[in-house]
Amino acid sequence: MSKLVHTLTLGDVLREHARSRPSRTGAVDGDERLTYAALDGRVNRLSSAFAAAGVDAGERVVWMGQNSFRVLEVLLAAAKLGALFCPLNWRQSPEELAFVVDDLAPRVVVWQDEEVGVVTAATRRRVRAEPRWVRHDGDGPDGYEAWLSNSVEVDPERSVDPASPVLVIYTAAFHGQPNGAMLSHTACIDQGLVYGHFTGATPEDVYLNSGPLFHLGTLMHTLATFVAGGTNVFVRRVDPEQLCQAIEREGCTGAFIVGPTRDQVLTARAAGGYDLSSLRTPRGSSAWDAVTSPDPSAWAARPGGYGQTELVGMATYTCLAVDAEGTHGRPSPLVQIRIVDDEDREVPPGEVGELVARGPTVMCGYWNRPEENARRHRNGWHHTRDLGRREADGSITFIGPKTRLIKSAAENVYPAEVERCVASHPGVAECAVIGVPDPIWVQSVKAIVVAHDETAVSADDIIEHCRSRIAGYKKPRTVEFVDELPRSGFAVDYETLDERFGGGNYPGGRTRSA
Amino acid sequence: MSKLVHTLTLGDVLREHARSRPSRTGAVDGDERLTYAALDGRVNRLSSAFAAAGVDAGERVVWMGQNSFRVLEVLLAAAKLGALFCPLNWRQSPEELAFVVDDLAPRVVVWQDEEVGVVTAATRRRVRAEPRWVRHDGDGPDGYEAWLSNSVEVDPERSVDPASPVLVIYTAAFHGQPNGAMLSHTACIDQGLVYGHFTGATPEDVYLNSGPLFHLGTLMHTLATFVAGGTNVFVRRVDPEQLCQAIEREGCTGAFIVGPTRDQVLTARAAGGYDLSSLRTPRGSSAWDAVTSPDPSAWAARPGGYGQTELVGMATYTCLAVDAEGTHGRPSPLVQIRIVDDEDREVPPGEVGELVARGPTVMCGYWNRPEENARRHRNGWHHTRDLGRREADGSITFIGPKTRLIKSAAENVYPAEVERCVASHPGVAECAVIGVPDPIWVQSVKAIVVAHDETAVSADDIIEHCRSRIAGYKKPRTVEFVDELPRSGFAVDYETLDERFGGGNYPGGRTRSA
Repeated sequence: MSKLVHTLTLGDVLREHARSRPSRTGAVDGDERLTYAALDGRVNRLSSAFAAAGVDAGERVVWMGQNSFRVLEVLLAAAKLGALFCPLNWRQSPEELAFVVDDLAPRVVVWQDEEVGVVTAATRRRVRAEPRWVRHDGDGPDGYEAWLSNSVEVDPERSVDPASPVLVIYTAAFHGQPNGAMLSHTACIDQGLVYGHFTGATPEDVYLNSGPLFHLGTLMHTLATFVAGGTNVFVRRVDPEQLCQAIEREGCTGAFIVGPTRDQVLTARAAGGYDLSSLRTPRGSSAWDAVTSPDPSAWAARPGGYGQTELVGMATYTCLAVDAEGTHGRPSPLVQIRIVDDEDREVPPGEVGELVARGPTVMCGYWNRPEENARRHRNGWHHTRDLGRREADGSITFIGPKTRLIKSAAENVYPAEVERCVASHPGVAECAVIGVPDPIWVQSVKAIVVAHDETAVSADDIIEHCRSRIAGYKKPRTVEFVDELPRSGFAVDYETLDERFGGGNYPGGRTRSA
Repeated sequence: MSKLVHTLTLGDVLREHARSRPSRTGAVDGDERLTYAALDGRVNRLSSAFAAAGVDAGERVVWMGQNSFRVLEVLLAAAKLGALFCPLNWRQSPEELAFVVDDLAPRVVVWQDEEVGVVTAATRRRVRAEPRWVRHDGDGPDGYEAWLSNSVEVDPERSVDPASPVLVIYTAAFHGQPNGAMLSHTACIDQGLVYGHFTGATPEDVYLNSGPLFHLGTLMHTLATFVAGGTNVFVRRVDPEQLCQAIEREGCTGAFIVGPTRDQVLTARAAGGYDLSSLRTPRGSSAWDAVTSPDPSAWAARPGGYGQTELVGMATYTCLAVDAEGTHGRPSPLVQIRIVDDEDREVPPGEVGELVARGPTVMCGYWNRPEENARRHRNGWHHTRDLGRREADGSITFIGPKTRLIKSAAENVYPAEVERCVASHPGVAECAVIGVPDPIWVQSVKAIVVAHDETAVSADDIIEHCRSRIAGYKKPRTVEFVDELPRSGFAVDYETLDERFGGGNYPGGRTRSA
């Protein structure tokens, strides 16, 4: 535990904002508009209510609803008590949700009736844990607002270790069930600072939280905006009309708007005549550019990098690798990265190995998974279970998940690496690699390939292509051509591929990717 | 002690730079030019040499010389061993230097013969401690380079707590003798990150270390450049011709060039026709602007803030307070600030009190001063001994040092506050306030005033001016006019003022400011 004089927790960040920028708007949600002083006051009330419900240090509080300014409140109230906050992915099935609730055994679940009421009810029927269920929407006497207004507005001023976990995000379902990555106060603050540094966050920023708050993709921005003392604007869900209204009304400088949502927003804007010019966005499409402002940040020029939930998102930044060989940049200034073999020995540049990380943004471990934690944090490094390569210039290329593994004699073959190599053939549109049982070598490598229409590519072409690029034992022994790869959501469905093409004999008996 | 998986020390930052940007130039000094890989190699050799000389965790290493790339090497070698590094102010007297060396009792003193040899010899004669003295300039068999090249290039890979001190800077001579503020790895890295954030540091930066490296004014830039993975360029001393050469040759993007040095550099540039256009500088003088590039950072637009050595420099940033009332901005995102009375109760906005701070950049304490540390870090806050005021908008105004104190009856009167008030009278050019013995009230307040030539200002004018602006017990009882204030260096010489105008009866018997 760090000395008090060196302590900075998420609760402390809120306290300082309430002192340093009391009149600055900290959170907006529809008609709700809270200054940092008001936000701090409500968080103090909420923490009193939580404390009365038994939420002590180390206890858990769960959010089961869509986006709301109350997500930030509940996080910060838990933070002031040294408790852990977990926002659930309400799009999951009641079985999956019940698993997480029972895994966490929270003292309080804050839930939402509108749109999420049915799945919540189905989840409650399955849950064995006995939390207090508090509805945040609606005006009932048992609801969140009544509970909050009946509680005293006193800062709990508990002594909270900044290295202790405050945020739990479920991820990494390696063995079929997800694990809750626990992120510390220091990890959240440091990542907010670093991510804010590269994305150019300022205290004048107004960020529209239009992506799901149970995912780091949005939460990194939320944290960066909060740490900088800017304004977080919340919308319950992605409704293009509502996004346009919020951007115009609040003068949003940033928003989580990706893929097809951008076109929907442009359509809504054209219909409603909204002014989106406060929004700073990377240049991309001429229609988008015409109605938004250019984003001068390093991130906008070269977005992305490598990250995972267990590292509070980004661990390497592409913007740190101008003209570099590696496609995923260089590490955050607060992260060390090594590429290691299965005995944790660093491999030379140019060789593929597991990405391991060390630094203040590394998770504290998964909730309630001591054995997995010992494996993942062995030898003082967080093992990401992802494959990467250090290039000669020191930059990093993320290859793919390590989880799927093919054994060819004593050698490990990582399908992700072989897929990357096969896919680099100009005649290949897509590729998936499986392991098929081999009487001598345990498994042999098989590539399932979708060829480009206009190209005639043969199995021999592909094998020859790989021969000069990866080790011989990694290159496909056989190649099959298909019209398309079977998918489950966005992910390739390897189980179906294994069934269709005779995959099997995987080490540990697993066939699926994480 | 933090868990290894969450650890980041200054040694780790160097290690990651050596992995992530091995060919990037980390340090330049005349003809010396070290990539980060080469710098790491030399630091490993040096740490082997240090270890053989008994420099274990917690031991001290002293630098007694002018600027050099070896300052960075010695700091980082100490960092890898968990030892403490202290760069001395070689401009001090041999008595003062010997006091510091004996206070630290270092294992090794790295010293410089050229320009610093005489004071070093005089210091050595006075020192009771028995460090190994290693000369860094010259090619002798006992010198730094010989020592380094005879040592093995192996990373010590010691386990070092990032909360442990790594840098010691002497300051705060409250009681006539300076105290060594110990700054942790985390404090140095975090400040490098935050200061680099506001000053717009990038991995492409090339910083000219042209200010003294025993002072945070330069060291904050050195750390920011190092943390970002940029290039630190070192020049031994401030020679305008050499600065021009270094800026042109290395394409320096930043430099520590203040006050009259700027004019000297402009003169040298005009004489030598140097190209200084790589240098990003705040707009100011037309001659300067014409030969340098504009600095787009938040810092350049609104430089400064409040800081002290004990906080690794800046703790508030003026650039965080656009259109704010306070003249010294708002706190760094990693610092909490409160304004408190003598019982550590927070005072309301608008009232003057002591600035206290909390967060990861706060010093670990002064070396070897347990009693002073207990006072300074009481109740979990670092007491700065500086006075400040929180304005209604939450921004902060630094008033002045708290150290000089006048007692009027039971009330504390801080001369700095009264001086600020008196000086705000349009007829006053300068002012110093002392306490004179009072038979009833212990002391009464006397203002010594330098009036503007063109104005006729009376003692009554000044007292009346203060009556409406500060508490009655704080306003001067008497006013004396002088042609100029006596000074010792830049500081007002209060001892001389006390002698001339009958100052005395100070609490604790002290008359001098820190």
